This record gives sequence, C-alpha cells and structure tokens, in this order.
Amino acid sequence: MRLSQYFLPLLKETPSEAQIASHRLMLRAGMIRQTAAGIYTWLPLGFRVLQKVEQIVREEQDAAGALELLMPTLQPAELWRESGRYEDYGEEMLRLKDRHEREMLYGPTNEELITEIFRQAVRSYRDLPKNLYHIQWKFRDEVRPRFGVMRGREFLMKDNYSFDVDKAASLVSYFRMFKAYMKTFKRMGLTPIPVRAATGPIGGDLSHEFHVQADTGESQLYFDSEIETLDENKLDPASPTVQDELLKWYAATDEKHDPAAFARVPEARRREARGIEVGQLFYFGTKYSAPMKATVAGPKGDTVAVEMGSYGIGVSRLVGAIIEAFHDEVGIIWPESVAPFRVGLVNLRPGDKECAEAGEQLYQRLMKAGIDTLYDEREESPGAKFAAMDLIGLPWQVVVGPRGLKQGVVEIKERKTGAKQELSPDAAVARLVGLR
Amino acid sequence: MRLSQYFLPLLKETPSEAQIASHRLMLRAGMIRQTAAGIYTWLPLGFRVLQKVEQIVREEQDAAGALELLMPTLQPAELWRESGRYEDYGEEMLRLKDRHEREMLYGPTNEELITEIFRQAVRSYRDLPKNLYHIQWKFRDEVRPRFGVMRGREFLMKDNYSFDVDKAASLVSYFRMFKAYMKTFKRMGLTPIPVRAATGPIGGDLSHEFHVQADTGESQLYFDSEIETLDENKLDPASPTVQDELLKWYAATDEKHDPAAFARVPEARRREARGIEVGQLFYFGTKYSAPMKATVAGPKGDTVAVEMGSYGIGVSRLVGAIIEAFHDEVGIIWPESVAPFRVGLVNLRPGDKECAEAGEQLYQRLMKAGIDTLYDEREESPGAKFAAMDLIGLPWQVVVGPRGLKQGVVEIKERKTGAKQELSPDAAVARLVGLR
Repeated sequence: MRLSQYFLPLLKETPSEAQIASHRLMLRAGMIRQTAAGIYTWLPLGFRVLQKVEQIVREEQDAAGALELLMPTLQPAELWRESGRYEDYGEEMLRLKDRHEREMLYGPTNEELITEIFRQAVRSYRDLPKNLYHIQWKFRDEVRPRFGVMRGREFLMKDNYSFDVDKAASLVSYFRMFKAYMKTFKRMGLTPIPVRAATGPIGGDLSHEFHVQADTGESQLYFDSEIETLDENKLDPASPTVQDELLKWYAATDEKHDPAAFARVPEARRREARGIEVGQLFYFGTKYSAPMKATVAGPKGDTVAVEMGSYGIGVSRLVGAIIEAFHDEVGIIWPESVAPFRVGLVNLRPGDKECAEAGEQLYQRLMKAGIDTLYDEREESPGAKFAAMDLIGLPWQVVVGPRGLKQGVVEIKERKTGAKQELSPDAAVARLVGLR
Repeated sequence: MRLSQYFLPLLKETPSEAQIASHRLMLRAGMIRQTAAGIYTWLPLGFRVLQKVEQIVREEQDAAGALELLMPTLQPAELWRESGRYEDYGEEMLRLKDRHEREMLYGPTNEELITEIFRQAVRSYRDLPKNLYHIQWKFRDEVRPRFGVMRGREFLMKDNYSFDVDKAASLVSYFRMFKAYMKTFKRMGLTPIPVRAATGPIGGDLSHEFHVQADTGESQLYFDSEIETLDENKLDPASPTVQDELLKWYAATDEKHDPAAFARVPEARRREARGIEVGQLFYFGTKYSAPMKATVAGPKGDTVAVEMGSYGIGVSRLVGAIIEAFHDEVGIIWPESVAPFRVGLVNLRPGDKECAEAGEQLYQRLMKAGIDTLYDEREESPGAKFAAMDLIGLPWQVVVGPRGLKQGVVEIKERKTGAKQELSPDAAVARLVGLR
C-alpha cells in the first residue's frame, strides 16, 4: 500500500480523553475514531489488526473442533424471559422496541439464543458433543465507557457454547477450550495468565479468566509465576486429573483470592499484578438448558437436559491489550502475527529520481514476495516519516535515501530492538523474506 | 468436514412461511434459522456461503482501490440531524435510547458517518480521490419483512463512499465501481443487468441498480438483451464517453422507464423481466458534504465541498439471489465460487469395512489436495443421503458403495448437469483436482 493513497490520519497531539497508552496510541496512529461514547470506527490500519486478531481466534476455534455460525446482533426479549435473565441483566442491556412495539435487545451475550438454536435441531445424545461459535458485535451499555476499545460499549466478541450429554463430557469441552485459548493468546505474542474466577451473571460453578498483565488492567491478580510457563501442549482435556494439574499453581483474581493458599506459594514466585481480561471460560451445566428445555434422548432412553459451557474472547479488546503489552514511549511495537503491515518502506527523498526508482523497485519486489508493505513516498521531512513509522509500529522499517544509495545500500531497522543494518537492496529483500 | 460432526439441521417439510424458493431452500438445507421477523441466524452451512460472497465482494473492492474500514452498527442521532435525514428517514430507521437517554440509531446506511470521518481527516485536494468501504450489518425496520434473507431487517451490506475534488473526478470513481460491480457479480456466476434507477432517499442525480433476473424479483425491468453481454473489461471509467457507451443499450427499472425509447429497441431484443436488486450506485455530489461542511483546500486555494458517491451491495441478500438463480426442484445448485464445500462425499455403507476404509481414504486425499469436502458417513439410507446432497447443492458428489468398490470404482456426479461417471478412486481425485 502506498501511504499517499492510504487513509491514515495520524494525530500529533495526544488526545486529552485518552487515559491509557493503547487508547492514546490507537487514536494517534489513525487506527480508530470515536463515533459515540464507547463506540468506535475502525480506520483501515486498525481494521487490519482487528482482522488478524479475529483470524487467529477463528483458526484456533476451528482447530479445536468448534463450528462457526453467525447469530444476529438483535434478539427478541422473549428468549431472555425464558431464562429469567431479561429482568436480571440490568441497565447494561440495551433494550429497544421496533416499529411494531415488539421488545428487542442488542445481544450482550448469546446463551439464550444458542440454546434456542440447539433445541430446535438436536434430538439425541448421539449428535453430541457440539461446540458452536460466532464472532459478532455485542453491546453492553457501560455507565462510564473508557479506555478506548478496552472497555467500549459496542465490541467484537468471539463466543462459543458447548453441548454435552453429561458433566464429565462437558468438562472435556471446557478444557479443550482452555487449551485453545492458551494457543490463541500465545500466537498473538502474549503470555496469558489463566486464573480461577467468579462466574458473575453467566452463572455456573467453574470459570477461568485469561489475563494479560498490564498496569492499567482492571483486575487484581495473585499468581504463582510458574503459571507463566504453563505448556498447554501437555494438557490433556480428556484427563480426569486436568483440573488438579492446573490447581498445582496458584492463580486467582481478587474475587476468588485465598490469602492463606497464596501464602503457601514460595515467596520468590508470588506475584501480584494488574491484569486485562481477554477471555473467560464458564461451565454452567444445565442453567439454561433446564429452563429452556434443551433436552436430548440420553443413552438409556431417558431425557437429559444438556450440559453446557460458554467461552468468550474479547476480539476488539485484544487489540488494545496487545498494545498495552507491546509499546514504548514513541509508539506501538506490533508482534508479527498481528501487525497491520510487516514492513514500512520509507523513501527519504521521493522527489529524487534515483530514490524514486530504488524505492519503487523495492516496493514491487517486497509485494511480489508476499510481504505486506506500507510504502511512505510522501513529500514529508525524514523526521516526520521516522516518527510516523515508529508510532504505527510495523515490525520492520526499510529506509531508502540518497546517501545510502550512493554506497549501494538501504537500511533495515527492527522496530522492537531498534537494531539497524545496512544492506544492498537485494540482501534486504532476501533478509525480509527469510525472516518470515 | 464429517457430516456426523457437523451442525446441519435439514428440514424434511417445507416451512409454510417461506414463499419463495431461496427462503424455502435455505431453511430446508439448514443454512439459516429465523431469530425474529426479518432477523436470521446463519448456521454453519449458510455462514460458509455468506463468507465466500463477502470475500469476493472484498477482493473486487480492494482491486478497485477502495480501502476497507469498519464503522459501528450504532450511530448518534446528531449526525443525522446535520444532514437533515433524521426526521426524513421515517419508520424504517430503528431509533433507540441508551441508558443516559441519548438518542441513537441502528445504521440503515452510512453517508453521514463516513462524511464525519472524512471531514475530520482530510484537508487538501492532494489527498483525493479517496474511496472508503466497509462490510457491516445494517438494520431497516421493514413493515413486512419477508422472503428470508432477501428482504430481512438485519442484513449484511457492503457500502462504500467516494470523495473527489470535482464532478468529473467523481464520475470516474462512479464508473470504476460500475466495473467492479460487474466483475463481482460475474464471479458469483450471475449475469447482472445494470439499469438506470431512481435515487430515492440517498439523493443525487445519477444511479444504477444491478439486478439478477428472477420471477420472484421485486422490480420490473425493461432492457435490451444486448446488455447481458456487456463486457466490463472494455469500459474505461476515465473515458468522458463512458456514460454514453452505457446508454447505447436500453435498460431501466419501471421508475425510470421510458416506453418511447424502449419501443426503439429491436423487438427481438426487447426484454421485460422481474429483477432482484443486488447492488446500487449513487452519485450525489455535495448533498452531504455541503451541509456537513466536508471541504478541502482546492487546487486554486479555494475551499471546495467534496463530490461524493455511495455504492452498496447486499451481501446477505446475494446469498438468496444466487439460490433464486441456481436451483431446481430438488435443491440448490451452487456455482463453484460460492459453494460451501466443493465436494460431497457419500458413503453408502459406512458400517461396511471396505466402504469405511475407501471412504476415509478418499476423504483424507481430497482434504489433502485442498478440496473442501463434506463427508457423509452417517448411518442413513442411500435415498436420504442422495436427497440431502442434492438439497444442499454442492457442485460435485462422490459416491462410495459396496457394488462399485467390487469393480474398483466410485461414482462422480456433477450436481448441475446430473452427469455421472464411474472412475477409480485415483482417477476421481485427479479429476476433482484437475477441475479446479
């Protein structure tokens, strides 16, 4: 993409409403604009990241055997009356009436609707297990939306729902998702901290949250640092001892915190930190299936209310959380897996014939090699160009300038380390291709 | 995908509420379920088609130089007061209030919001042209939603917006979209009929609709059959005569119909037909930019209100329109480009050891060759399996049965023609790989 043809409205000033780094950087880097309190437009650069995060989530869901569908944003109120949550949910639920005065709501989550879809379709335990997911915009009418996309009102969430014949099978589904979540967050470069958590309005008696450590996080975490090295590949979701294996390492949010148990963690490994919640697992058994009569014929000819769990990942929130984890004083530092472009190609003097030709050639060659490149060929000062590239945080910068070209070299800079290297254009392309 | 593990709730009965083929077939084939009047859940099979249609739309937008972003579903009422459309839009606009009693609406279209985003960001004619698009759910509160996804209330639309310095440049943007739309629909196997159309609530003085012919269409079309052979590759959007070239062939909806002009079309080429509108182009100049003060510094140092156009494609509606165009009395006949799976592999006797092994091998080989395959290994009667495959309409069926295996063959059937062929499993795989 040529920057002169792109839509990348950078801000020089730090917007006053932005209290945390990710919000500030997303506004300054032209990733988002606020449309209303807690409601954002994702500009092209931000949208590319959102899509990459979404795609990683999708791939790990598919790999774990979940099936993708898509439920609508609006739901009828009746469904929520069946489960009893319509009145309970409170003011966070955005309620509305259509032109025929029918009561509707903008889905804040989808337990009721998926249960409705399931009960229409599945009749026998032989069709279980099933795990259905979607990635759809949700709305929660927060009193004080803030922190940009981290606590927005309209937000993109992946939520899925497992259906099993009994509790044992349901826990296998639960820990399969546990494993998928670990993989998902690690692919984004994050070190997720899975902690036992309270179940809140979703209900149930087993829940884990996945947190990213950040000083601006809303949750207080207490954990044994060993949990940071948890290898999900060694977890067998079908093992009856998988819960106990996880309990080996203390990890809890303040709601579930047990100071006495925490005191037994060796002092050198005891951690207290703030965390941003990016995903949560719930096992809630028959909380929805029983009142909503989502039953199947069981193996003994009996009628069984299916055992369910639900599992959420905050897709739009993750974009903010990744920035909280990866930035410095001048801008964002994208992990390669979610970077909007892999390479930023800077032409220091696009008006100069030699620079223009060399820049254009490099751009064409990088694109041909399948390397997503943002080419800055604008008439701007070198300082402004370097600042823009550091701000938007692409993993690699390639700088073409008249002085280097005289010596037959361009400069490659790694955003993360700041390490620079001078290479011939050929070697630079080979290097970037090889690094992939 | 193994059918026993998939979520494909087929219906044997024809649902009484479905008046047209696509609605009937989408329900019966387990593609959608109604969540509320005019609001649907896309089940896994339907969602796969929706994604393929969406991806073709996206690719052709990107190829035409449009930039993707994502605006939210909810918008503040103030923006629509600026353009004067808040009161005008009528009951089709879903209005709501948040917990702080702020007036909001579920976007039925996005001219106001994109104009707001543009005017915050762009200052100079040097940054033009710009063409911004998104693919997002919209809501229009139809009095009588019907025909399934063809006239739903919550629907997926691609809408984009072009910004140019003057009318001539804006028309180039317009006809670039004309060309992109022709390509988009043709890639889906459709023969789009572009017709001059009225502009309605969007406004402006130039508009084309793209229609798919179907008896169940809501519009009356009058056209010269020559327009069906229009080759978009020969259209130069930048040519000053491009409008006249298109006027060569008569084509209009009833709103713009001119019987006298139509009478001059040679009788053998005169067509009257019903059409389903799947896309529309609007040129409306400064209708939004003037009241909303979306101006740039012009080339002569003057201040210019930008010239705009907007362009919509009904992504979810297209799924229905494609089915209207491609089905027979037993089911859907998917064009390859949008088929949910390319091959349906039917195992006539999965309980038989030889059949099970041959079926499994074929499934593995097809998947390894990158051919999306739905493998029916359920314990069902051959008749039920054939009927299911014909109903869901995958382009190719491969049938494995004990009789064929004895002779070392499987059967390949092309859904479109019904043509069958017996081949060795090796030759069958080679054939399906080669056909791609």
